[in-house]
Amino acid sequence: MSVTAAKGFTAAGIAAGIKENGNPDLALVVNNGPRRAAAGVFTSNRVKAAPVLWSEQVLKGGQVSVVVLNSGGANACTGPQGFQDTHATAEKAAEVLGRGAIEVAVCSTGLIGVPLPMDKVLGGVETAAASLSEHGGEKAAIAIKTTDTVHKTSVVTGAGGWTVGGMAKGAGMLAPGLATMLVVLTTDADLDDESLDKALRAATRVTFDRVDSDGCMSTNDTVLLLASGASGVTPEYEEFAEAVRQVCADLGRQLIGDAEGASKDIKVEVINAASEEDAVEVGRSIARNNLLKCAIHGEDPNWGRVLSAIGTTRAAFEPDQLNVAINGVWVCKNGSVGEDRDLVDMRYREVHIVADLAAGAETATIWTNDLTADYVHENSAYSS
Amino acid sequence: MSVTAAKGFTAAGIAAGIKENGNPDLALVVNNGPRRAAAGVFTSNRVKAAPVLWSEQVLKGGQVSVVVLNSGGANACTGPQGFQDTHATAEKAAEVLGRGAIEVAVCSTGLIGVPLPMDKVLGGVETAAASLSEHGGEKAAIAIKTTDTVHKTSVVTGAGGWTVGGMAKGAGMLAPGLATMLVVLTTDADLDDESLDKALRAATRVTFDRVDSDGCMSTNDTVLLLASGASGVTPEYEEFAEAVRQVCADLGRQLIGDAEGASKDIKVEVINAASEEDAVEVGRSIARNNLLKCAIHGEDPNWGRVLSAIGTTRAAFEPDQLNVAINGVWVCKNGSVGEDRDLVDMRYREVHIVADLAAGAETATIWTNDLTADYVHENSAYSS
Repeated sequence: MSVTAAKGFTAAGIAAGIKENGNPDLALVVNNGPRRAAAGVFTSNRVKAAPVLWSEQVLKGGQVSVVVLNSGGANACTGPQGFQDTHATAEKAAEVLGRGAIEVAVCSTGLIGVPLPMDKVLGGVETAAASLSEHGGEKAAIAIKTTDTVHKTSVVTGAGGWTVGGMAKGAGMLAPGLATMLVVLTTDADLDDESLDKALRAATRVTFDRVDSDGCMSTNDTVLLLASGASGVTPEYEEFAEAVRQVCADLGRQLIGDAEGASKDIKVEVINAASEEDAVEVGRSIARNNLLKCAIHGEDPNWGRVLSAIGTTRAAFEPDQLNVAINGVWVCKNGSVGEDRDLVDMRYREVHIVADLAAGAETATIWTNDLTADYVHENSAYSS
Repeated sequence: MSVTAAKGFTAAGIAAGIKENGNPDLALVVNNGPRRAAAGVFTSNRVKAAPVLWSEQVLKGGQVSVVVLNSGGANACTGPQGFQDTHATAEKAAEVLGRGAIEVAVCSTGLIGVPLPMDKVLGGVETAAASLSEHGGEKAAIAIKTTDTVHKTSVVTGAGGWTVGGMAKGAGMLAPGLATMLVVLTTDADLDDESLDKALRAATRVTFDRVDSDGCMSTNDTVLLLASGASGVTPEYEEFAEAVRQVCADLGRQLIGDAEGASKDIKVEVINAASEEDAVEVGRSIARNNLLKCAIHGEDPNWGRVLSAIGTTRAAFEPDQLNVAINGVWVCKNGSVGEDRDLVDMRYREVHIVADLAAGAETATIWTNDLTADYVHENSAYSS
């Protein structure tokens, strides 16, 4: 159901020929109203792709009618021509669909530093517009895949007849601010852009921002939330915000589950931190420790590498009060040897690490993956 | 020649039985004076191994007579017993060699979270003391190896008849503050501990602190510099500091050349930065980017990943003024596509990346390695 689960939206996904292998590579999401309120969150990388620079401008108006997304090329580090290409893409979609270009957001994903084949992109926008459908959400989700092995969608329905739906792509370069991804969320709830913005920022802060597959931050990350108002229902803010959070959490978990080369999904839960900021800093440090990620790959409950990662942070803690559990076994107690590490069962895909800082009452959870030979292979061959 | 290249020192390296495979695992370095001045630099990890906590206390006195080093166990995260074990090791060496325990530094390396077999360590100290020799430097360097495939030594001789020699171990967990390593440097120059401290800090700041193999920081890093004064020569400070820097740079380069699983040594040179701090931050960000490290492994001059890494820093730069050269080819100019990437020859082990920030006149060089399936293998099997 994806982005067309909510009323008022049509979508399409087609093969425009941007990818040399002929796979689907261009998607459209169209908001048919009556409302066209929107919010967006973008990469915090200072090297931003042309479509990010463009879409940031679009979102300043708080209105989005159309989203054009392409895989097969990131249009990042492509200079002034790259920005002109994004602009031409928005103009084309506006012309074909009878909207204003300033309400057309553009998202691109794929290799950095390669100009897009604009004849194919512009032809693709026309073809996709002709196949827009209330059932097009699935095809749109498929068309934005890069190294993803599966497409990712999610839907939550609120009491009273409104819906939040979404699609995501992302398999590598997953790191905070945001995880590398393109995400489009839609809702038929009747809300203004300020409510959307507040709910979207609250949701991404605790979901996509805490997915850290490989510590690498993309130039193209974009998360958009579009509201059509077509349900005629204005839900309570808290109820709506929770639905957005659930869809983001579900999509974020799917991103981790499909991360490049991964064999383990690792939930790093930091507890008893002095502040949420401390908990996040420690969680990220653990999640980014290559040595630990290799150990988890080898099903080795190497808690020494967890302590070593905690020790590099500025968080409040005393080394001799740290405790670490791996899959429920407290292998480290008071900064030293705890329960028998042979008790830890590491056979399953999901691994749960708890780091107890014994310094307060705050908590945070970061999701990451193990580091594998397959990750190395996939990322040493990607652009060849 | 190693630590016994300088006059006034004896050393030994033996198999004490700490390592189950029977390889050498215990070393002694003894300063026979007339001076016993010393300086030390330790890991900035807040989770410090017992021998680091002990040796930091020893160095406060500015005098070191003996260094006991063991491989086969880090004695980190071993609680109060771990500290008592280090203390007992120092007491044993002091007793056997007729020195004060407070002048005995202790260094350990190996797995975290495993208590040392103290009967073997104490017996080993006796055995090693009996085999101390002016030609023992090589054996000492061999006894401190863990996953190192070769032992590392270096010697620089100053005009006027004084010498700086050294040994190092380290192959994984190489990251700043310091790279994970044990290093002992010796000199027969006649200098006080303040001069030694100044020269050692100046040298490690631009050498070991800029070696970043895998971004992981150890609990045990220690670099010691011992002066016997046996040459009777007091060199000019600048001349001496330069000799120490050369030995550190040489040993640091050897560490990178022997990093776990690596197939490429990568020199990341940041130029035209607004400050040295900016240059170091950008260099580290590039050096720690797993996606780039995989690309280099695949001999893929993927400059987009360099820009993506630069974009995550706070350094002063404009995205459309960044330039990147890989092995002499400016593949990125003004933040966009530059010279033909097919011109880049990546066949050799050393790869040279230049990142031009176009924001000032400062520079810094960080050394790192590629990320390989062999690294994953070695670190997923290490403690099994």
